[in-house]
Amino acid sequence: MSIGGATRFELSEADIPTRWYNVVADMPSPPPPPLHPATGRPPDPQDLLAIFPPDLVEQEVSSERHIAIPEPVLDIYRLWRPTPLYRARRLERALETPAHIYYKYEGVSPAGSHKPNTAVPQAYYNRRAGIGRLTTETGAGQWGSALAFAARSFDLDIRVYMVRVSYGQKPYRRLMMETWGAEVVASPSTLTASGRGTLDRDPDSPGSLGIAISEAVEEAASRKDTNYSLGSVLNHVLLHQTVIGQEARKQFDLAGDYPDVVVASCGGGSNFAGLAFPFLGERLTGNAPKETRFVAVEPAACPTLTRGIYAYDFGDASGFTPLMKMFTLGHGFVPPGIHAGGLRYHGDSPLVSKLVADGLVEAQAYGQVGVFSAAVQFARSEGIIPAPESAHAIKGAVEEALAAKRDGAARTILFGLSGHGHFDLAAYEQYLSGALQDFELPTAAIDQALKELPAVDRA
Amino acid sequence: MSIGGATRFELSEADIPTRWYNVVADMPSPPPPPLHPATGRPPDPQDLLAIFPPDLVEQEVSSERHIAIPEPVLDIYRLWRPTPLYRARRLERALETPAHIYYKYEGVSPAGSHKPNTAVPQAYYNRRAGIGRLTTETGAGQWGSALAFAARSFDLDIRVYMVRVSYGQKPYRRLMMETWGAEVVASPSTLTASGRGTLDRDPDSPGSLGIAISEAVEEAASRKDTNYSLGSVLNHVLLHQTVIGQEARKQFDLAGDYPDVVVASCGGGSNFAGLAFPFLGERLTGNAPKETRFVAVEPAACPTLTRGIYAYDFGDASGFTPLMKMFTLGHGFVPPGIHAGGLRYHGDSPLVSKLVADGLVEAQAYGQVGVFSAAVQFARSEGIIPAPESAHAIKGAVEEALAAKRDGAARTILFGLSGHGHFDLAAYEQYLSGALQDFELPTAAIDQALKELPAVDRA
Repeated sequence: MSIGGATRFELSEADIPTRWYNVVADMPSPPPPPLHPATGRPPDPQDLLAIFPPDLVEQEVSSERHIAIPEPVLDIYRLWRPTPLYRARRLERALETPAHIYYKYEGVSPAGSHKPNTAVPQAYYNRRAGIGRLTTETGAGQWGSALAFAARSFDLDIRVYMVRVSYGQKPYRRLMMETWGAEVVASPSTLTASGRGTLDRDPDSPGSLGIAISEAVEEAASRKDTNYSLGSVLNHVLLHQTVIGQEARKQFDLAGDYPDVVVASCGGGSNFAGLAFPFLGERLTGNAPKETRFVAVEPAACPTLTRGIYAYDFGDASGFTPLMKMFTLGHGFVPPGIHAGGLRYHGDSPLVSKLVADGLVEAQAYGQVGVFSAAVQFARSEGIIPAPESAHAIKGAVEEALAAKRDGAARTILFGLSGHGHFDLAAYEQYLSGALQDFELPTAAIDQALKELPAVDRA
Repeated sequence: MSIGGATRFELSEADIPTRWYNVVADMPSPPPPPLHPATGRPPDPQDLLAIFPPDLVEQEVSSERHIAIPEPVLDIYRLWRPTPLYRARRLERALETPAHIYYKYEGVSPAGSHKPNTAVPQAYYNRRAGIGRLTTETGAGQWGSALAFAARSFDLDIRVYMVRVSYGQKPYRRLMMETWGAEVVASPSTLTASGRGTLDRDPDSPGSLGIAISEAVEEAASRKDTNYSLGSVLNHVLLHQTVIGQEARKQFDLAGDYPDVVVASCGGGSNFAGLAFPFLGERLTGNAPKETRFVAVEPAACPTLTRGIYAYDFGDASGFTPLMKMFTLGHGFVPPGIHAGGLRYHGDSPLVSKLVADGLVEAQAYGQVGVFSAAVQFARSEGIIPAPESAHAIKGAVEEALAAKRDGAARTILFGLSGHGHFDLAAYEQYLSGALQDFELPTAAIDQALKELPAVDRA
């Protein structure tokens, strides 16, 4: 097994998409609206305007097929976009598969993942709305560093509530944010009522994404100069990520090929949507040359799409957000501590969930040992060391390639390599030393969390 | 100060250089040859063939202007080459300079620096010579990870002797090498006579680059299946790096511009040579549109070119290698522990040294506090967090841009951004917290080391 032989399909700056693609315009039936937990009705836009700028609230509910990307956003995108599409010829040879494997690599962004694709427009729209300050939460740090970079792009101050256990364990991600000028606070903190409440109950709390969200939202809601920013799940976030798939579509023209299957990892859903939706749109509108399949890959330790149910639930752990109709394991579900921190979310985006419910998107779940095995095979054949989240897509693509080999079919596989693993090498050490383990997830644990679903499901 | 507004000048795969440029062909006078320390005569090629493959020994002494890049090497180069050239418009605005600042970014390689440009051909030529195994040394880990990646590209086994103190302090660089399948050993080790000798004298030795070189060379010299690989200093290493400057030259055609000054950091010299030599060649052959200046930037804590002397000295600390005529602080000189580990070399490449001695290349030295200040200003304006080594070039470029501002001159500045700082964020923390310090380097320390120069200087 060795590296190289890949072919890179290159676009120029002029090929950066100038508009985002909104899949809502082409879905057979639109996703059910979010609901206010108290009233059971869609939330008042005013509630959203307390923490989001008008442009993003508008995009959140838009059913326009295309939304123009503002020039100042394109200006920043040009720092790393278009991103490369590679044919993984050495991986194909290592697998002895007749399949063609392509991957779209988003790790070339300054923050090292796809997250800046939405962080940049979110910062821009906030600046345009006269906002001078953002808050957000981050777990492993990918989203926090993307927003720190984006905030700096538009001269916004930013405070990142970083889950305390990650704050201690991932100093490099924290330092990356600080180098870009962000203020990083370990959560729970004494800066907010929700943080202080948590610390009162448990002074040694390691924190959680749910608590960090509560702190960031509380601060944004209570300060006029400050808005909140979210890195996945919501419609406008998925919208911004569609630059990935639109570029990949053009690159397949250069390659003279078209995917039979599109594979991407799925936590909150924005990475999957970004790659898949532009191809899915072609299929939904009858413009695709093939009956392409779409596969969302999730961790077996947090199997939202494969073992959850499709129901209204809260977006956060504490039950502060509007209810969203989505695949969920229950907002009280706490996934085991796998290395792919970005995929540890109890729910999934309403858009991806609806497409799964309608049978247009498939879902698969894999344990982390198999995922890291695929990641190392990829690193040793293609040279790039992937983030643990992205490695889920590699595992999915490898399984598709092995299936093509069994079937003797020269299928074309596209997967999304959403980021590099430069800050995740401790996880590789665990794998290489044989210490990495899979988690058994008892059905009872899921059943218990699902019992706490809110009673407002009226779909 | 904010990010973006840069313009990327893009080449396609077809623009990757197909031959390396050998500056020896165009130098006014060639560099003096290396000398065997015992005989005072140029070393027998057979000595070199004990640890290097024939193609590299030939390139080391070649005076051909161009040497073809083998197709299997180009095949791997295509994973990340051509690398981007950016116009740093936001940095220009932050400095309020009339200068145009461009940078060539080599951090997009899998190993994150320019080092794979030579690691890949070195691995290839060894494989072609029937060698199945490489040894090398690494300090901070940039070279070791580049060679680990390259060895994997051509199915070579590799053992990296990593300076013990870095082995402990830089676990991520070590894990990167292991992920690519390299064996990484803390040096001094018990695997070699020189390692055991060092441990006998000092069981707690933190190691040094000199000791690690001795171990790697000893093992390569004593095993028929194993060769040694060096990451800088030698002529063939500088040769391979000229893909950087050749691409930049084409990108300046796209930009409709040409550098008045080329700035690059300089430790062993390969990064500087890679960017500067193709432009210098144009000037030496009368084909340059401008009287371009060339500036090599080094750390004030290891001021080889600015405070050393031009004399024959050993390439390693222990005095095992042939003598090379170069700027040197004395092979016994131990530089203070600055963060730019890749620039802590007592000497400099014979080619760069000769050009400095002939007045064709200038040298500047800066302290690390000023260097990190420039690095953070760059990260906050252009988005990329640079390696400490690369930040020396940023500091040099910033000084040139400020000089242009004082002179009211719209000069064009090109600098080399040789790598990213993803594994160097602890150094940024030191700087951001105010704990980073400059080192005073007493003249007596240099004088003392220079006293130990070998007595064979006959130039």
